[in-house]
Amino acid sequence: MDQNELDYPFKLLEYFNGFRVSKVIFTACELGVFDLLLNSAEPLSSRTVARELGTSPDGMERLLDALVGIDILEVEVADGTALYSSTDVASLYLAKGSAKSLHDMIIYQSQTIYPLWSNMADAVREGRNQNQKTFGLPPEDVFQAIYRSEEEMLKFMGLMNSSWVLDGHDVVTAFNLSGFQTIVDLGGCTGALAREMAQAYPSSSVTVFDLPRVVEAAQQHFSQENQAVAFHTGDFFSGEIPAADLYVLARILHDWPEEKCLKLLRKIYDACKPGGGVLLVEAMLFENRRGPIMAQIFSLNMLVQAEGRERAPSEYSHMLSKTGFHNIQVCRTGKSYDSILAIR
Amino acid sequence: MDQNELDYPFKLLEYFNGFRVSKVIFTACELGVFDLLLNSAEPLSSRTVARELGTSPDGMERLLDALVGIDILEVEVADGTALYSSTDVASLYLAKGSAKSLHDMIIYQSQTIYPLWSNMADAVREGRNQNQKTFGLPPEDVFQAIYRSEEEMLKFMGLMNSSWVLDGHDVVTAFNLSGFQTIVDLGGCTGALAREMAQAYPSSSVTVFDLPRVVEAAQQHFSQENQAVAFHTGDFFSGEIPAADLYVLARILHDWPEEKCLKLLRKIYDACKPGGGVLLVEAMLFENRRGPIMAQIFSLNMLVQAEGRERAPSEYSHMLSKTGFHNIQVCRTGKSYDSILAIR
Repeated sequence: MDQNELDYPFKLLEYFNGFRVSKVIFTACELGVFDLLLNSAEPLSSRTVARELGTSPDGMERLLDALVGIDILEVEVADGTALYSSTDVASLYLAKGSAKSLHDMIIYQSQTIYPLWSNMADAVREGRNQNQKTFGLPPEDVFQAIYRSEEEMLKFMGLMNSSWVLDGHDVVTAFNLSGFQTIVDLGGCTGALAREMAQAYPSSSVTVFDLPRVVEAAQQHFSQENQAVAFHTGDFFSGEIPAADLYVLARILHDWPEEKCLKLLRKIYDACKPGGGVLLVEAMLFENRRGPIMAQIFSLNMLVQAEGRERAPSEYSHMLSKTGFHNIQVCRTGKSYDSILAIR
Repeated sequence: MDQNELDYPFKLLEYFNGFRVSKVIFTACELGVFDLLLNSAEPLSSRTVARELGTSPDGMERLLDALVGIDILEVEVADGTALYSSTDVASLYLAKGSAKSLHDMIIYQSQTIYPLWSNMADAVREGRNQNQKTFGLPPEDVFQAIYRSEEEMLKFMGLMNSSWVLDGHDVVTAFNLSGFQTIVDLGGCTGALAREMAQAYPSSSVTVFDLPRVVEAAQQHFSQENQAVAFHTGDFFSGEIPAADLYVLARILHDWPEEKCLKLLRKIYDACKPGGGVLLVEAMLFENRRGPIMAQIFSLNMLVQAEGRERAPSEYSHMLSKTGFHNIQVCRTGKSYDSILAIR
């Protein structure tokens, strides 16, 4: 931090206040503020927004003003009445129905991740997830906790679905994968990343492999436009995995300790033909431990919610080599998620 | 937000991540990381920090790395071992024992404000505080909630005490108050602001007025260096207030709706001699509703925790004029809190 922080710690206060800024945006999403403003033909008063969304006028006014303060909404005062309107950023990313909506990511962060992080001190003390303390769920079975109800499973799937809106294209085009004819996305959830893959490599056949209940929910609740992607049910730890030229593990290894990662990589190695490969998609730490802050924060998130961690490229390379893969290439996208390609 | 956000919303993701960055710092404070590093003669490994503080090595390593990522700690790798040390900012503001420690503010934010904000959507819906839903406490009596136990009262007093570390000097010197011989800080809590006042105006006599249990705890648990400040017990809503030339209301009016503010201001007006005055210290909103973001966020905080709100200078001026005060002067400090002086 620069020397001025010693005179007055503006940046530090901004960090302290971070949780409240997050919650200002999350709350507006939960209440439907961005959808209402996007669909309105004209700027609206706080009183109108409150009436349409069934909230208190006073609370809504304060919320809208704070959103103006962080440049997520605009306000104009006309005849003494403040009229609020959306910005391009809010319309594109925060409204539920928009093309690049992060709405589902926000709901999951607000309702699941925010309460989990209230127990971060205990997570660091104990070195394990806080599903028990936060939600009364056993810490041993991470996905039993994440999928504890149909509603929670859909929320988690929404998170996964909406997060590939941002980085999906970059991670699948980090390498030219057009030489792989059949691609299987292991734990591919709603198929959001698989669809990016199918779009980037139209001559490849792309399959999502996931648990039966996940596949069922993906087909029932998430748009499967163009039917470009096939689904295959199974359990990649306890069952068989289908034959393929390329296996994708996107945000899978970070859930697990090294031993389980190696088990999964070995299974892939055995199923994979020579010349076939595996694509890892993760938020990769710098080797020098100094960042990226997003990956460092995600690693703490894995501590409080799962059994894994984020890793540096050398750690992934080590696991891949140990399993028998070679020709390991790392590509940093400069965004949240990066790619590693390795060949059998 | 600038146009680049439409291509990739880096700033928006930073906002979403704000709650986790807050909790990284809060967790390190709760575990005593900054105190240990400040008092260590040399940089420490994560393993040593974990052992000294009784945490898991793995959790501590991730926490320390994230603190490096936000420039709050420094790391050097020597012979393959990462060694962590404090920065000037952390030593000055985050260690518990340091001169400008914000430790108590952080503990209160982490343990009381963070959980309250998990119910912000309901606060906006209902237009009232969430003490009931968050802590099982009745929403009607705000200070019964805040002072629900000796421990909670001390935490709140710690918050008040440590927040004047930053802005105390600026708000008491916003105007030259040396003409006021006797100064009473109504609801002055631990006396932190009163001590700033006594230091800036050594020929004035400064008294803290607060509830008996608060005064008792202030004298018992918070350093009263130099005995520069007197204490006087009472209840400014239901009882008498002592005679004085200047009354201070620092972060008092923002707790209450206008009706209660006017009641209190009238009582002060009646007790005040002509030529005497009242100093209001609050985070003041801009008249154009566009900021400051800190005051807008505090106003939402008042919604979720109390009965009041933050206000623009015109709203304070209106209440002061209505009560009979005149010669109203507003001074913005450029920091979190500002001052208004009015004369009877």
